[in-house]
Amino acid sequence: MIKKLLIANRGEIAVRIIRACKEMGIETVAVYSQADSDSLHVQLADEAYCIGPIHSKDSYLNFTNIMSVATLTEVDAIHPGYGFLAENADFAEICKACNITFVGPSPYAIQKMGAKDVARETMHQAGVPIVPGSDGIIKNEEEGAKIAEQIGYPVIIKATAGGGGKGIRVARNKEELIKGIGVTQNEAQTAFGNPGVYLEKFIEDFRHVEIQVLADNHGNVVHLGERDCTIQRRLQKLIEETPSPAVTPDIRKRMGDAAVKAAQAVDYSGAGTIEFIFDKKEETFYFMEMNTRIQVEHPVTEMVTGIDLIKEQIKVANNEKLSFTQDEVTFTGWAIECRINAENPFKQFMPSAGQIKMYLPPGGFGVRVDSAAYPGYKIPPYYDSMIAKLITYGKTRQEAIDRMKRSLDEFVIEGIFTTIPFHSRVMEHPVFVEGDFNTKFLEKYTIMDSE
Amino acid sequence: MIKKLLIANRGEIAVRIIRACKEMGIETVAVYSQADSDSLHVQLADEAYCIGPIHSKDSYLNFTNIMSVATLTEVDAIHPGYGFLAENADFAEICKACNITFVGPSPYAIQKMGAKDVARETMHQAGVPIVPGSDGIIKNEEEGAKIAEQIGYPVIIKATAGGGGKGIRVARNKEELIKGIGVTQNEAQTAFGNPGVYLEKFIEDFRHVEIQVLADNHGNVVHLGERDCTIQRRLQKLIEETPSPAVTPDIRKRMGDAAVKAAQAVDYSGAGTIEFIFDKKEETFYFMEMNTRIQVEHPVTEMVTGIDLIKEQIKVANNEKLSFTQDEVTFTGWAIECRINAENPFKQFMPSAGQIKMYLPPGGFGVRVDSAAYPGYKIPPYYDSMIAKLITYGKTRQEAIDRMKRSLDEFVIEGIFTTIPFHSRVMEHPVFVEGDFNTKFLEKYTIMDSE
Repeated sequence: MIKKLLIANRGEIAVRIIRACKEMGIETVAVYSQADSDSLHVQLADEAYCIGPIHSKDSYLNFTNIMSVATLTEVDAIHPGYGFLAENADFAEICKACNITFVGPSPYAIQKMGAKDVARETMHQAGVPIVPGSDGIIKNEEEGAKIAEQIGYPVIIKATAGGGGKGIRVARNKEELIKGIGVTQNEAQTAFGNPGVYLEKFIEDFRHVEIQVLADNHGNVVHLGERDCTIQRRLQKLIEETPSPAVTPDIRKRMGDAAVKAAQAVDYSGAGTIEFIFDKKEETFYFMEMNTRIQVEHPVTEMVTGIDLIKEQIKVANNEKLSFTQDEVTFTGWAIECRINAENPFKQFMPSAGQIKMYLPPGGFGVRVDSAAYPGYKIPPYYDSMIAKLITYGKTRQEAIDRMKRSLDEFVIEGIFTTIPFHSRVMEHPVFVEGDFNTKFLEKYTIMDSE
Repeated sequence: MIKKLLIANRGEIAVRIIRACKEMGIETVAVYSQADSDSLHVQLADEAYCIGPIHSKDSYLNFTNIMSVATLTEVDAIHPGYGFLAENADFAEICKACNITFVGPSPYAIQKMGAKDVARETMHQAGVPIVPGSDGIIKNEEEGAKIAEQIGYPVIIKATAGGGGKGIRVARNKEELIKGIGVTQNEAQTAFGNPGVYLEKFIEDFRHVEIQVLADNHGNVVHLGERDCTIQRRLQKLIEETPSPAVTPDIRKRMGDAAVKAAQAVDYSGAGTIEFIFDKKEETFYFMEMNTRIQVEHPVTEMVTGIDLIKEQIKVANNEKLSFTQDEVTFTGWAIECRINAENPFKQFMPSAGQIKMYLPPGGFGVRVDSAAYPGYKIPPYYDSMIAKLITYGKTRQEAIDRMKRSLDEFVIEGIFTTIPFHSRVMEHPVFVEGDFNTKFLEKYTIMDSE
């Protein structure tokens, strides 16, 4: 039984985990960098220890110091939160070696899902739909053209050794493909020393829809419905909601089944998320990746299911069986989350660290705030810019939106710039309100005049 | 259609109403006394006007000034909140005369339920169970003894003209009754000039359980389940929850039906509450009184039904039909509310007005705060001592309690004394946790050593 737990994280997620532990009667140990000594998670935990200088690599990523604190304080478990060490298989291994429960899946599952090409192949074998493409590296232009014909244009040419936006090229017809394959091969050879390229269908207009899964160590896997995270800026999720305004009951069922299969394929344990590319027009979806940890946007799922995901993670880590079956998971109402960042939306979302002078979160019915901010808090410039998650719940999507608008209006954060004005404008935007948009929403529509 | 609404109230309920209006796109007008110019409701409303000096009779009860503001700002409606003018039939009449919608029931319903003896008779005729007793005034000791024998001891002798705890006496046997009738008659003659007394069964061990009803102007009445308000101090509710740990599905059905009948008996419109004396051992309940307004504890009902009661009040005032039937009302989970007062629980709950220096409400999953407090707010000593309502929601009663404990721990209110420590102790009390208690809970158990 977990009686004492170390939170290897900071900010709102550290506070979130401490809250769950308090409600479960579990003692908490916080760790913090030299920049975070005044943080709320340090104040709320039963014990707190400094683990190093401001840079993450010296503190929140510092295996040795974290394990030293864990050992000295005699914790039974470590919760990694998200980011930092959450998807680090080596860290999970070290916990195991030290006989400390890592609140998360096995190192095996982390590894299998961490390498994107391995994950694609694993999912394919498990029967989870992946983006149509070539079966590995293509031999030549002719084979490429044949495959492209089969899967349909546009296609994307990807160097197998590529990454970081390099060795990637879109082809909208045969001519572009023939030319593109050669160019990409040459580029890949030069950049990565490996000319191998493969093809994937290029899906332009898609929604980012993901499924929350929960699995125990006794073979039970359930899903908790979808989250729609289509509103993104430069691949950064900004607004999430559940249910998705684009997902039908049939899609939900199929996507849920696929997500359960995906989790089963890697003997998954705990809370995880399978992200899908969802093509609404074609009513098809494809595996994108799996996050083997709790996600930032997990609260929206909690709001509509009533299930506390952090508590469930801890129970599973405790070897408990899931206390509900798939049929017992019910969905009520609608929830939306806005990530409020310390950034200036009027100046290209420039980071805006500094001291919060006045702070008053919104309250009342259907409003949830997950934050580590407080009046007088000095936001350090070294970490994530997210300072609060504002989540609203309504009987309908419109009520959740209306509640979000008034909550954004009410939220007082003085002394720094925040993305509150940005969110207010999105909530007013007719296309957002209509619910019919894709990941290019922010490219297509001007939300902030300065952008 | 209501497009602009005046809130004839202050504090958290004024803020609550403003929030609902903002979500509905209704413009708001706040009114305030000279002591409340820095209040949150003044800051949040679209417009705000001073209506008089600090004393309620000169401001929040000042018909003339409130109606002047209403007329000058051209509002369509007035929401009275609770307290002040909420159950004042004359005020409701004046609104009508001025062609301004009063958000509440008809003056007729307010009057019928306002006079407690009239309400008792009305309920009796409607078939709602009332406390067994004599049919009006008793003729003499012999008749009294006969009736007491029928209803069973102990009985309560009540002067028909009595009130404020005067002209009331408990009799536990025939001897006490015979003696008590004479003494009470004499006392009543002296104090009220009317010697008439009647008998009622004296119910000692009861729970305060009430039913929320909602009625429209088209003949539809539904109930939204019960609230258990048994934890009281000197008849002041301190903690409320729903569902009640003592109410069975059968009792809920019967009590709900009785509440609907009660509302129908006075052609009720809007949100109202029928309060019952609930005798758990006997599985019986009796009409206590009806509150013809929104109640302080309405949020717990909102948490388990998802229905926004203030919005429903406004929709009904707009002549809209209820958008759901009784069968469509669903109940999920458990909700508890703690009233946090500016009082010192270590010193007999002595009022503790003054400036709030640091203020940080708790957050996270399942936590709702309804408050008009903010950092730097000076609580005026002239009004209600309640400064925040902390409501927690859980899948089970235990989860709601655990969440309440951690939320109380987390709640930062510096500069004044509050009842937070009192609530923390109740939440830890084994009898409270067990759920088996009655209105004498705080007399029976020592919660604060100083009491």
